[in-house]
Amino acid sequence: MNHVEHIGIAVKNLEVSVPLFENLLNAKCYKQETVESEKVITAFFKTGDAKIELLQDEKGDGVISKFIERKGEGIHHIAFEVENIRNEIARLKQAGFTVLNEEPKKGADNKMVCFLHPKSTNGVLVELCEQIIPGL
Amino acid sequence: MNHVEHIGIAVKNLEVSVPLFENLLNAKCYKQETVESEKVITAFFKTGDAKIELLQDEKGDGVISKFIERKGEGIHHIAFEVENIRNEIARLKQAGFTVLNEEPKKGADNKMVCFLHPKSTNGVLVELCEQIIPGL
Repeated sequence: MNHVEHIGIAVKNLEVSVPLFENLLNAKCYKQETVESEKVITAFFKTGDAKIELLQDEKGDGVISKFIERKGEGIHHIAFEVENIRNEIARLKQAGFTVLNEEPKKGADNKMVCFLHPKSTNGVLVELCEQIIPGL
Repeated sequence: MNHVEHIGIAVKNLEVSVPLFENLLNAKCYKQETVESEKVITAFFKTGDAKIELLQDEKGDGVISKFIERKGEGIHHIAFEVENIRNEIARLKQAGFTVLNEEPKKGADNKMVCFLHPKSTNGVLVELCEQIIPGL
């Protein structure tokens, strides 16, 4: 794991939460992007190494709405940048962690991503992400 | 807000969770410290700019145990490094956020800290922290 790439925060309504986080962080949202594989809309803020990513379901019945029903709006996951996601998946499986998708999938912000099951990580939903380098 | 200084994670038992996070992050815990003002024991890991801070109550009836009762073990708060905590408190109050302690208090890792109420920050417990510079 290199560094915290972003912290994901589950919200009901980006129209409310984007201006709220702009005020909180004193920084403008620099990108909104729909992630097809997860059916969520994301909004990004830069804060040093680690970005803040707000997450809202495209429709009202997705993974984010289910999380909010159980736990309320709030911090959803931590994502760590890795150099080689397949090597890191192999290392973590070997160490006893439960990988939710062994085949990395396309995430937001031009990354290949994989999630670890919170049951194996002290209740923390952990995302690994590797930057996609164009042309490779 | 400069950058994410650390992410706080609520755990029941550091003896279990410290080795788990050492395996997960592939990094050694470099410090354990009791925070008298909060009656919690903390354990720190370096991951780039942003540290991971595990939090366990000194005794079983503190703020971390109450959090775990309600939400389970998992991510507890995000802390942002600020240059001048009093100026940042004034800015955030002006912007409509609810500050839990207007007088900064001594936190872990040689910082003055202040918390914002999650009701004003989309369910996210936000900590501001300013490095204490010895001699000032």
